[in-house]
Amino acid sequence: MAAFKDPAPADSRFDRLRAANREAWDAYVAHAFVRQLGAGTLPEPAFKFYLIQDYLFLVQFARAYALAAYKSDTLDDMRQAARSMRIIVDDEMSLHVKFCAGWGLGLEDMLRVPEAPQCMAYTRFVLEAGHAGDILDLQAALAPCVVGYAEIANRLMADPATRLDGNPYRAWIEAYAGSDYQGVAAAAVAQLDRLYARRAGQGRDAALARLFGAATRLEADFWQMGLDAA
Amino acid sequence: MAAFKDPAPADSRFDRLRAANREAWDAYVAHAFVRQLGAGTLPEPAFKFYLIQDYLFLVQFARAYALAAYKSDTLDDMRQAARSMRIIVDDEMSLHVKFCAGWGLGLEDMLRVPEAPQCMAYTRFVLEAGHAGDILDLQAALAPCVVGYAEIANRLMADPATRLDGNPYRAWIEAYAGSDYQGVAAAAVAQLDRLYARRAGQGRDAALARLFGAATRLEADFWQMGLDAA
Amino acid sequence: MAAFKDPAPADSRFDRLRAANREAWDAYVAHAFVRQLGAGTLPEPAFKFYLIQDYLFLVQFARAYALAAYKSDTLDDMRQAARSMRIIVDDEMSLHVKFCAGWGLGLEDMLRVPEAPQCMAYTRFVLEAGHAGDILDLQAALAPCVVGYAEIANRLMADPATRLDGNPYRAWIEAYAGSDYQGVAAAAVAQLDRLYARRAGQGRDAALARLFGAATRLEADFWQMGLDAA
Amino acid sequence: MAAFKDPAPADSRFDRLRAANREAWDAYVAHAFVRQLGAGTLPEPAFKFYLIQDYLFLVQFARAYALAAYKSDTLDDMRQAARSMRIIVDDEMSLHVKFCAGWGLGLEDMLRVPEAPQCMAYTRFVLEAGHAGDILDLQAALAPCVVGYAEIANRLMADPATRLDGNPYRAWIEAYAGSDYQGVAAAAVAQLDRLYARRAGQGRDAALARLFGAATRLEADFWQMGLDAA
Repeated sequence: MAAFKDPAPADSRFDRLRAANREAWDAYVAHAFVRQLGAGTLPEPAFKFYLIQDYLFLVQFARAYALAAYKSDTLDDMRQAARSMRIIVDDEMSLHVKFCAGWGLGLEDMLRVPEAPQCMAYTRFVLEAGHAGDILDLQAALAPCVVGYAEIANRLMADPATRLDGNPYRAWIEAYAGSDYQGVAAAAVAQLDRLYARRAGQGRDAALARLFGAATRLEADFWQMGLDAA
Repeated sequence: MAAFKDPAPADSRFDRLRAANREAWDAYVAHAFVRQLGAGTLPEPAFKFYLIQDYLFLVQFARAYALAAYKSDTLDDMRQAARSMRIIVDDEMSLHVKFCAGWGLGLEDMLRVPEAPQCMAYTRFVLEAGHAGDILDLQAALAPCVVGYAEIANRLMADPATRLDGNPYRAWIEAYAGSDYQGVAAAAVAQLDRLYARRAGQGRDAALARLFGAATRLEADFWQMGLDAA
Repeated sequence: MAAFKDPAPADSRFDRLRAANREAWDAYVAHAFVRQLGAGTLPEPAFKFYLIQDYLFLVQFARAYALAAYKSDTLDDMRQAARSMRIIVDDEMSLHVKFCAGWGLGLEDMLRVPEAPQCMAYTRFVLEAGHAGDILDLQAALAPCVVGYAEIANRLMADPATRLDGNPYRAWIEAYAGSDYQGVAAAAVAQLDRLYARRAGQGRDAALARLFGAATRLEADFWQMGLDAA
Repeated sequence: MAAFKDPAPADSRFDRLRAANREAWDAYVAHAFVRQLGAGTLPEPAFKFYLIQDYLFLVQFARAYALAAYKSDTLDDMRQAARSMRIIVDDEMSLHVKFCAGWGLGLEDMLRVPEAPQCMAYTRFVLEAGHAGDILDLQAALAPCVVGYAEIANRLMADPATRLDGNPYRAWIEAYAGSDYQGVAAAAVAQLDRLYARRAGQGRDAALARLFGAATRLEADFWQMGLDAA
């Protein structure tokens, strides 16, 4: 069993936003959905409903990265956002479709299911926060998802309650614990620090923490949506 | 008892959008929350929770009218949106605060309560649809609220199950059934027709109907949120 | 002759942005158009062309305040922006029309003239900066106009080269030197300080100065457009 | 000498927008800058200034495609916009830098030159039109550039006054006349038809024509900016 690796270094901006929302954060990263997923006891209908919504979520996430590319104030950030968007629409969505096929879910099934309110709430909140504010607001609202999934996977890998052998959700856990995804999360953590240095100051900390907290709570609702579907 | 007055004439664009979403529309305008409100049997905590969220909703609604003013393509539409926004931030919000005070809810109470996911889902969906599309998309997403409340009040006024005498929610019903609000709704219906004529064609009908339907379902969730709080 | 009253206190954020763009600022506030306007020697066609474009400019400016209302992060800022927008579309535009009528320009004349590239450049730059960034970026891009006109009028009032008696442009100078407009400018200066404190830090100063500088140069181009029309 | 190949089929939406702005269109595609470029007589400083501004233009253009990806209403359109953006930021900008190096212009030279007002006017007009309207407005504002360059190159290839041998600008002409770029233009023409069918109707034609016309005039100003720099 691995020791827990925190994707966000202490004193990173991400770490401070997380610390300012400790209770909401714990409710998200240690949600019953996550714990059952690690233990392999999550009811299959819960996971399937989550998977379908996660596909619809990816579409909105790609739009969020398009918006991030537009709102970037350096060419490097624009390129990083463009790459993230391309990876989502060209690679991740096909992978997701294949993964779902392994669970007996065809693309038509996924597109027939309406977007759940919890998916709409989180994605539209993030996108709208991006329009209302600047690139830092947008990335702060995206961070609970991007970095949170890396933390969740690392927590599961380090948790004695996790069972990998025979766990039907093992591929999910290992994908997010894998170095590819951990690299994505690390890049997001570093970018948040750069954006904060370039655009913010102490007077903005409370507002950023509120934004991060709201996004975190909407992420926890997303897990709950999965559980409720079972 | 009055005969039901439909705020939207047959063959208005609004009427067609509503017809294309008949099931979702009925679930919204005849929601249990609405029926209990008309009968005077709605539990007070349900109404109070609704009232508080409706205040937070108004803030987002004012932002939606600001966005509508920005996205208007005629000076007349810009002025109409500016006036709507001004009425919300200067008049309606104070009225709401007074109304809430009558229910024992102070402004501090309202600002202490976090925005419910159902409030976030609906308002951010509308605002984001406005950014993603044009002024017609924005107004089509706002219409289930603006016009729907007028229809709901008129339905209650025409419903034999409605009890006005001694109904603690009588002021709410009469406000939305009153000529001031009915005029607001009629203006929104007429504007939707004008915007459609200026900006759309038949090829867009399905997408507008989907947008209207999604907003309608999120409005029904808002009523349900109230019921669930009781 | 009055002593020059600076609408922006030393060490206000506005004062620092101005100091960081001293050369561009002086080229704007002491532009030949302005000096000739103060001396009463500006050719009438130059002023008339400016007036017409300034009407088309006001339409875009109203849109900028609509966007500012949307992007505001407090109810107070939202109300201030809504009020500014309402004043522009309900009062200033009618005043402008009346003023132009005194110069023999009918509303139809104004709406027949196409928006000049210099008007498009400045207004679309401001609006787009507002979308790309946050409310502080938007207000920093608006400030050279809002506060600059107050400074220009005060400079003219304090300038021995200014001739008020018999100056055909006297009403223009006195309107912007008047306490109403000076109050608008002072409010904009104070708001910029508040927004900076709430949203920015030192790391953002260079980018804000670049934005302010670009807007200032586009304002100088607007004066030049007037001169070139003579 | 090749016969002129029109990148837009008769009765395409693009063809109608062009026909509605015939005078402005001709002033753009047959601008003196273009004719001198074809004849090889364009002063080198004019071309160099154009090249530098065109690099700064590409940055804004990449942002426009990011916005288009965000505003797309199908996954296919989103992917097409994402690909366009990626091509600009990853390939075209490096090609441009190499091309400029051949003219003795280093990347530092290009980044030291401030964005010309004509570049700002056109790019910010397009971006802002995209925010104010929908994806069709954005693509209609981009079309004079994307499709116009293909038409200009084809016109030059078919023009007896064009001299390719020994023409220092031959590479420029051949790049835009080449099948790669012609394919990009054809895709833009086809997409405009699809977007119109999905989102518009006859009532919108006049507004789209005005938008297209304004963008066309700003493109002509961009050529003039080059000539004026010589």
